[in-house]
Amino acid sequence: MSQPLYDFSVPVFVKALTNLKAQLGKAQMFCAEKKVEESTLLQARLAIDMFPLIKQVQIASDNAKGTAARLIGIEPPKMEDAEQSLSELMIRIDKTIAFLETLTPEQFRDAAHVKIRLPYFPEKHFLGGEFLPEYGVPNFFFHVVTAYAILRHVGVNIGKADYMGSLSMYND
Amino acid sequence: MSQPLYDFSVPVFVKALTNLKAQLGKAQMFCAEKKVEESTLLQARLAIDMFPLIKQVQIASDNAKGTAARLIGIEPPKMEDAEQSLSELMIRIDKTIAFLETLTPEQFRDAAHVKIRLPYFPEKHFLGGEFLPEYGVPNFFFHVVTAYAILRHVGVNIGKADYMGSLSMYND
Repeated sequence: MSQPLYDFSVPVFVKALTNLKAQLGKAQMFCAEKKVEESTLLQARLAIDMFPLIKQVQIASDNAKGTAARLIGIEPPKMEDAEQSLSELMIRIDKTIAFLETLTPEQFRDAAHVKIRLPYFPEKHFLGGEFLPEYGVPNFFFHVVTAYAILRHVGVNIGKADYMGSLSMYND
Repeated sequence: MSQPLYDFSVPVFVKALTNLKAQLGKAQMFCAEKKVEESTLLQARLAIDMFPLIKQVQIASDNAKGTAARLIGIEPPKMEDAEQSLSELMIRIDKTIAFLETLTPEQFRDAAHVKIRLPYFPEKHFLGGEFLPEYGVPNFFFHVVTAYAILRHVGVNIGKADYMGSLSMYND
């Protein structure tokens, strides 16, 4: 492992977001075939008091860039939540990945000891080495998996392999 | 970080399983209040070709113990998938956590270089240091979040805080 807090954030987020983008591509085909308005799909949700698909994707993007940025003490790029189509969500994912790809393992050298504050918890802080496994990773996957679950629930033609994506395997 | 492959597996799995168990406890109350058979809830699913709640929980348990065990080259305890109630699933989670809690960071010292084989990929292997972030963690959260999503979808009174659980935070 080069820098564990890099290894368990940046490439993990990039991979899951890449896979999510591909799922949204299949959702575009679904909308075209079924003659469903994309705006309808973007508002689909699993329960009336859960966030809809569009928000799940936006939050996954925010979590990925926010978590990585907080670990190295920089400001993440701000995004306006102004997306109105699947294509625009895919562009947002691209921008999020492009930001993540500017980060280097070296920048995460002291991340375990960084104090991290979240607006919902005033006058409290996490330490980076606990923040990532306890909060950053579970929260990120919450939104990525919920987005997948919404797509599956409405009938988009995706499966577990679309969620897992490509894997680093070696021949015996 | 003591041992990164420990830090991003055992305590992460224990926390998420602890939270999942508490959600199943609220699901018991839901069944009692709504006069829903537990066997009906255990078979609830988000799409007709997705696994039902019971299987999501069983697989989350299998992933947690299997991933941790593979990283240190031991056999995980076998469980029979014979659960028939929410209580029995909660006991399975307890047993899974009890196994995880026998593992020590020290055992994960060489885990990054361990060759890991999965039955679905014959004649191929992962290396532990890639297996955990690329496969183990995303796969585990897939099933934990899907279980949560099923519970939310049918109306069990849980929310994001039940998923996140307690967090290590410090006063400023």
